Amino acid sequence: MTGDALSAVLDEGVLVTDPDRMEGFRRDSADFAEAGMPMAVVSARTVDDVSRTLRWASEHRTPVVPRGAGTGLSGAAAALDGCIVLSTAGMTAIRQIAADDLYAVVEPGVINADLGRAAAEHGLFYPPDPSSFEISTIGGNLATNAGGLRCVKYGVTRESVLGLQVVLADGRVIRTGARTVKNVAGYDLSSLFVGSEGTLGIITEATLRLRPAPAATPATMVATFGSLVDAGRAVASIVRSGLAPSLLELMDHASVNLIEDYRPMGLDRSVAALLIAQADSVDAQRQADAMAARARDAGAALAMASTDPVEADMLLQARRIHYQAVEAAGRVLTEDIGVPRSRLAELLGGIEEIGRRYSLLIATVGHAGDGNMHPAIVLPRDRPDAVATALRAADEICRFALRLDGTISGEHGIGTLKRGWLSGQLDEATYAAHRAVKSTFDPLGILNPGRAL
Amino acid sequence: MTGDALSAVLDEGVLVTDPDRMEGFRRDSADFAEAGMPMAVVSARTVDDVSRTLRWASEHRTPVVPRGAGTGLSGAAAALDGCIVLSTAGMTAIRQIAADDLYAVVEPGVINADLGRAAAEHGLFYPPDPSSFEISTIGGNLATNAGGLRCVKYGVTRESVLGLQVVLADGRVIRTGARTVKNVAGYDLSSLFVGSEGTLGIITEATLRLRPAPAATPATMVATFGSLVDAGRAVASIVRSGLAPSLLELMDHASVNLIEDYRPMGLDRSVAALLIAQADSVDAQRQADAMAARARDAGAALAMASTDPVEADMLLQARRIHYQAVEAAGRVLTEDIGVPRSRLAELLGGIEEIGRRYSLLIATVGHAGDGNMHPAIVLPRDRPDAVATALRAADEICRFALRLDGTISGEHGIGTLKRGWLSGQLDEATYAAHRAVKSTFDPLGILNPGRAL
Repeated sequence: MTGDALSAVLDEGVLVTDPDRMEGFRRDSADFAEAGMPMAVVSARTVDDVSRTLRWASEHRTPVVPRGAGTGLSGAAAALDGCIVLSTAGMTAIRQIAADDLYAVVEPGVINADLGRAAAEHGLFYPPDPSSFEISTIGGNLATNAGGLRCVKYGVTRESVLGLQVVLADGRVIRTGARTVKNVAGYDLSSLFVGSEGTLGIITEATLRLRPAPAATPATMVATFGSLVDAGRAVASIVRSGLAPSLLELMDHASVNLIEDYRPMGLDRSVAALLIAQADSVDAQRQADAMAARARDAGAALAMASTDPVEADMLLQARRIHYQAVEAAGRVLTEDIGVPRSRLAELLGGIEEIGRRYSLLIATVGHAGDGNMHPAIVLPRDRPDAVATALRAADEICRFALRLDGTISGEHGIGTLKRGWLSGQLDEATYAAHRAVKSTFDPLGILNPGRAL
Repeated sequence: MTGDALSAVLDEGVLVTDPDRMEGFRRDSADFAEAGMPMAVVSARTVDDVSRTLRWASEHRTPVVPRGAGTGLSGAAAALDGCIVLSTAGMTAIRQIAADDLYAVVEPGVINADLGRAAAEHGLFYPPDPSSFEISTIGGNLATNAGGLRCVKYGVTRESVLGLQVVLADGRVIRTGARTVKNVAGYDLSSLFVGSEGTLGIITEATLRLRPAPAATPATMVATFGSLVDAGRAVASIVRSGLAPSLLELMDHASVNLIEDYRPMGLDRSVAALLIAQADSVDAQRQADAMAARARDAGAALAMASTDPVEADMLLQARRIHYQAVEAAGRVLTEDIGVPRSRLAELLGGIEEIGRRYSLLIATVGHAGDGNMHPAIVLPRDRPDAVATALRAADEICRFALRLDGTISGEHGIGTLKRGWLSGQLDEATYAAHRAVKSTFDPLGILNPGRAL
C-alpha cells in the first residue's frame, strides 16, 4: 500500500490512515460538495512535513487536498478519492509579533481570533474577520482570500499580506514578498497564492500586516427601510460620502424574520431591509450620526446612531447569528455574489424575484459596503426536488450578478461548487491564462485538482 | 527590412522608423542605464495596435520594450538594439468615471494628474501620487507599481487596481479582476501584471479605485532633529500610534542643505533630519498636534503643527524640489531601498557612513512612514572615477538594506539597473518560480527581455 511508503518519509504521528480518524477530514463546510475517501491524512507540524509530503505526492502522482479548519463554504477542501488530505491546522505557532513594525509572522494553523488576541496584547489588531474567525485558520483565510465585516474599511486578507513561505508541488520551498510595506523586487507572487485555494502551492508561513487598534469605542448606526431600493441608495450614499464605516451590513426582510424566529430580539419584522453600520475612528459618534442622516435622506423609516455598547452588541449579534438562524429553518445553500455598490438594490430585488419564481425562501445578508451579498437559500424539508431547485435558483442568482457587472464569488471562493459559473465570468483567453499559471506551478496536476478553476 | 512588414499590419501614423524621431523613445529617466537603437517605435492608439504589434513581434522574435512617459528610474524602458519600442502614451482616454461605484476605467496613456483632475470633478481622488504624477502615465505607474507620498495612508498603485485589460505576448487579449471591490473568482492576475515592468504583458486598460476626496484642509506637522536616531524613533512612534498621516516624509541634513542652496527657504541648515507629516482627516489638526507631540517625545529639537496652507505648501514644495536641488549639485544616482520602519535610523546612519567612506555626498529623502528611502548619490564632477565609485556605494546601500530585512526597491522597480542585486533578495528556488512565471507568459522572451528579473 502506498500509504506505507508515505509513512516512511514522515515522522511518527504525522500520518493518519485509520478510516475512522480520517472521517473528520473528508469535508469542509460546503454541505453540497461531494467528498471522496482519502488514502491518508497528513497532519503537518513543520514545513518539512509539508515538503516531504508534496515530494512524495509528486513522485507518486497522488492528488493533495490541503485544508485548515475546514470552515470553507465552496468545497475546496473536500477530499478526493485516493488523495492525501494535507492539514496545516497543527502548525499553530505565532512566531513573531513585530509590534514596532506592525507585522506578525505566523504558521498557517493559527486561528484567526488567536492572532487577534496576540496582537491585542500589543495594542494592535489583525483586520480580516470572516464570520468563522473564532474557528478558521489563517492558512484557510489566505487560501480563500477571506473577507469579513471589517474589510469594508481595512481590506480583504490579501491586503494584509506582506509575504509568504510556500511549498511548491515538487516540495521546494520559496519565499514571496518582504517584511517592508513597499516592495517591488520581483513579481507579486504573494497575491497569486492568496485566494488560489491550494491549487498552486501550500502556504506554510505568512508575514501579515497588523494595525494599531482603533482608539475609540465604536459608534453604531442602525436603519430600517420599507424598500430595498431605499436601502441600496443609503449604502451608496454612505460609501460615496467619505465617511469610513468599519462595517456596513445589510439584512433583508426574510433574514430579520428568521433571526426573530430563532432568537427574539425585538427587531421590526415588517422592514424590507435593516442596515447596520459602525465607525471606529476618533470621531465615531459624528460618523454614525452622519450615516444615520444619510440613511434618512435615502428614505429610511427609522435611522439612529448609538454608542450604547449593549445595543450595538445586540445588533452585531443579530448579524452574526444569521447563519444559525437560517440553518434552523432548513438545509441551507449559501451564495456569495458581489456587484458594484450602485447595483445593490437591483441585485436584492432580483434575488427576491428569483425566490418568488422558485417558491423558495431566500434570506439575504451581507457586506453591503463592499457590494458582497450572501443569499441563503433555505431548502424546504417537504419538497423532494429541493436540492435541484435550489441549485437552479443559485444558478440564476450567479448569472444575474454577472449581468450587473458583478462577480460569482466575493469571498467564499470557487472550490468545486462554483466552477460551472466561472466561464460566465472569465472569457476563454483569460481562463487559458489561468490554466497556464496552474500548469506552471503544478505541472502534474496534484495540487487540489478540480478546484478553483 | 522587417520594419516594412510591421508597417503592413498597423494603421498609418502608428509606426515611427525615422531615427531622429525615434531618438526621444530610447531612454527613460535612468541616466545610468544603457539604451540601444530600436528598429521601430509603435505609438499605439488602440488595443488592436498593441495586439497586432505583439503578434508580429512574436512571429518575428523581435523584442518589445513597452513605455509610457519614460519617467522610470530603473531603466526598464530603455530601448534594446533592434527592438520595437511600444508606447501606450497616446492611449489617453478616460473611458468612465463611475462616481457612485468609486472607480474609473482608463487607458494606459492617461497622465496620473489628469485622472486626479477628472476624479476631482466628482469629489473623488486617485491616491497614488509618484513624484512624477504631473507627467507620468497610469500605464507606467501600473508597470512599476508606483508609490508616492500618499501611499503611507492609501496604499501603492496595486492597491488601487480592480481589474486590467492586458495584451499577452502572442497578441491575445485578456481581462483580469472585476468591477467589484471584492472578487475571488480566478487567480489575482491583476496583481501579477502590476509591477512586472512590461515583462508579462502590456496593459491596455485599467479599472482603478477612486476614493471620496478628503473633506478637510490638511494639517501639517514639521519637526527637526539633531540626530537621525531621534528622527527614526519619531517615525516609528507616529506609525505605531494609530494616527493616520496622509504623508510622512523625511529629509536628511544633506538634503536640507542642497535644497537651501538651490532655493533658499529658511530651512534650518544645522538639522540632522527634517520630518514633514500631514493629516487629511476631519480631525486633521488634532492629528498633526499629536504627531508633533510624538516627535517632541522622540527628541525633536523643534516640532510644530500648522494649518497655514502657505507654510504647508512651502514645506511640501521643499520636499518636491528635492530631486532638482540634488541634480543642480551634480549628476545623480537615485537609490530606492526600503526597510521595516523600526530600522529606519539604522538605515540612515549606515547610508551616512557609506557616504563618508566613499567621500561621496549622499542626500537622502523618502517616504519615512513606509520605510522607503531614496538616497541620492551626487557624483562629483571633478572625479573621473565618480560613476564607478557611486555604483559601488549604491551596491553597499542595497546590501545594507537587505541586512536590515529590507528590500532593494520600494517603488522604482528593478529595470536593468538593479538586476545584479536581486539574487541577494530572492533565493534560488524563489527566483526560479519567477522565471517560470515569466516563461509561461512570454515563452519566446520578447517582452522587455532582461528587465525586472
